[in-house]
Amino acid sequence: MLYFDNAATTMPSKTALKQAEQFNNDMFFNPSSLYSGGIACAREIKNAKQSILSNIGATSHDLIFTSCGSESNNLAIFCSVKRGSFVTDKGEHSAVHKCFLELKNRGQNVEFIDLNKNGSVNTEKLYEYVKNNKVDFISIMHVNNETGAINDVNAISKKIKSINNKIIFHVDGVQAYGKIPYKISQDIDLYSISAHKINALKGVGVLIKKKNVNLSPLIFGGGQENGYRSGTENVFGIKVFEFAGKEKYQSIRENYQKIKEFRDLFFEKLDKNLFTFISDQACSPYILTVSAKGLRGEVVMHALEEYGLIIGNGSACSSKNRFSRVIESCGYDNEILDGIIRISFSTETTYEECLKAIEILNKTVEKLKGILN
Amino acid sequence: MLYFDNAATTMPSKTALKQAEQFNNDMFFNPSSLYSGGIACAREIKNAKQSILSNIGATSHDLIFTSCGSESNNLAIFCSVKRGSFVTDKGEHSAVHKCFLELKNRGQNVEFIDLNKNGSVNTEKLYEYVKNNKVDFISIMHVNNETGAINDVNAISKKIKSINNKIIFHVDGVQAYGKIPYKISQDIDLYSISAHKINALKGVGVLIKKKNVNLSPLIFGGGQENGYRSGTENVFGIKVFEFAGKEKYQSIRENYQKIKEFRDLFFEKLDKNLFTFISDQACSPYILTVSAKGLRGEVVMHALEEYGLIIGNGSACSSKNRFSRVIESCGYDNEILDGIIRISFSTETTYEECLKAIEILNKTVEKLKGILN
Repeated sequence: MLYFDNAATTMPSKTALKQAEQFNNDMFFNPSSLYSGGIACAREIKNAKQSILSNIGATSHDLIFTSCGSESNNLAIFCSVKRGSFVTDKGEHSAVHKCFLELKNRGQNVEFIDLNKNGSVNTEKLYEYVKNNKVDFISIMHVNNETGAINDVNAISKKIKSINNKIIFHVDGVQAYGKIPYKISQDIDLYSISAHKINALKGVGVLIKKKNVNLSPLIFGGGQENGYRSGTENVFGIKVFEFAGKEKYQSIRENYQKIKEFRDLFFEKLDKNLFTFISDQACSPYILTVSAKGLRGEVVMHALEEYGLIIGNGSACSSKNRFSRVIESCGYDNEILDGIIRISFSTETTYEECLKAIEILNKTVEKLKGILN
Repeated sequence: MLYFDNAATTMPSKTALKQAEQFNNDMFFNPSSLYSGGIACAREIKNAKQSILSNIGATSHDLIFTSCGSESNNLAIFCSVKRGSFVTDKGEHSAVHKCFLELKNRGQNVEFIDLNKNGSVNTEKLYEYVKNNKVDFISIMHVNNETGAINDVNAISKKIKSINNKIIFHVDGVQAYGKIPYKISQDIDLYSISAHKINALKGVGVLIKKKNVNLSPLIFGGGQENGYRSGTENVFGIKVFEFAGKEKYQSIRENYQKIKEFRDLFFEKLDKNLFTFISDQACSPYILTVSAKGLRGEVVMHALEEYGLIIGNGSACSSKNRFSRVIESCGYDNEILDGIIRISFSTETTYEECLKAIEILNKTVEKLKGILN
């Protein structure tokens, strides 16, 4: 199997699983328990927080463990600013987009800012809106999950705060953490991440929160996570995330460089007569979206699977609509939108796999076009 | 180690972990993905639902996977009835109790019904309240997590519906599922369960929902779980829960009988001069709460730990207050409340462990009392 759908999910790291194994064995305690085993588990969670924060140089931030990136986004969007005017962009993942639709539903004022051609937010329009309107909350993603477009969230939040320093600035960092070399700035109030995108487990997310930012809980109960998120902590999943994160950050720049070379190989070798590139050089190298114009992405995906090549068609989370809402917002026509496929990499990906994948992609799409024309 | 804090959490089943292992290896796919691996994972989730529902004979109910029992309770309480009058009892776990405090905070009408001496709800008072007041939503726990008191939720919900069949009836079944032989009735609209209480993993909960009950999401996003709960599904955790559940239900009556004999051994052999029993014969045998009157429960707990005996002091989730809110509501005085400890069993518990635990309990508490008097 050639797995190129790492933006959807990744294979858990064997090393991280092994390191965390004890938390399903002799260290299985409830971290709220007051005997030594429970206290040790609570300490392990604290250590995990420290490690996850330090990976992105967070010193004025805390961290709340949640169950997934979606929950982190929901917590950030629904529980910091209760009422007011909310701004985001048209490229956000459903876990942000649907929250904004719900805010609208609840009578709040919401605004969706236009995208540039590669899926990044049109910052001119964003700043203009913030200058001319009362805004309370902004959510901008770090790396677009469909195109890989990088928003310079440190620069954007700095500019936003210079216009209005009362605005709470949230970043969905799910496709950035563990992949993009990055240090979080003081202007970022909230930052969401997800474990299973970097070879840790499904079922763990994080909301990084600037210490002075007010937040109410989304889930009430036993008061875990300083009262911000109740529910017995998933110690095993949390530790796997810590260990997988360490693996990634040990060589984050080397990884980035390696993946960039792989991605550039696709830029170079994918047949330009068959594929239109949606992602560009400025995008995160971990995600490459192209269109096999004239074909249906889903058909291409299934044909590639016959050769053992696994890719995504758009975001796995929004796989029920014909067109991607996000790529459509980038301004492409139906023919392009129909043919969208997403190739996404992980640090496990090898050069040889890339060469094989490119060969299969060119061969298969050419064949499919031949059959249909 | 003699582990008698199974109501707080349990050691994951090695068999269930082994059976589910593949979902962290070659079956690690995102269940929303449209290629065969993703579709297979989605099918596995569907099978898990069927299995978990069939364990309690649920045929007119569906199931929503969440991240924990707390989330299930929050989803049930905040997302079925939006506005109105909410009733619960004074014995509920924080994950229900705190939701009710929040409902009050949001301007809703809430009522807490008194308890009987063993922690079960005073049904006369409950029915009287429902007869005399407009009620929209009721939450009653199945097994009290502090005393083990069993509420006959099928009978209660039947009676409630006979008074007012518009009421939505929710049950926190976290300490019942996998332990108490039980078939869910048609009068139960919502039923919360948690995986890690029955030798599965932390990080997985379930909300069982009667098919015709309306529910809005607590977490918005990619539309997983039929839109009721977004976020990439924790396939591994879900499968561990399915397999652990199967293990329990294969011999649920035999387990119940065995644990009852163990619990009765404590009733018989714990020194009546040292311990006051809070739990009674009618309680779930999986939980036995006693008071080492004249001592502090926490002191007893730490002293027992020296001999390798691990017990809880009240609910691990509310371990920050001096007295248990729940036991206090049962009508005990401060001296009793101070000495509360909770002994809780799992199917892994052995007869020999029980004998040893009883010996340590009698010896240690006698010694502590001797030192203090």
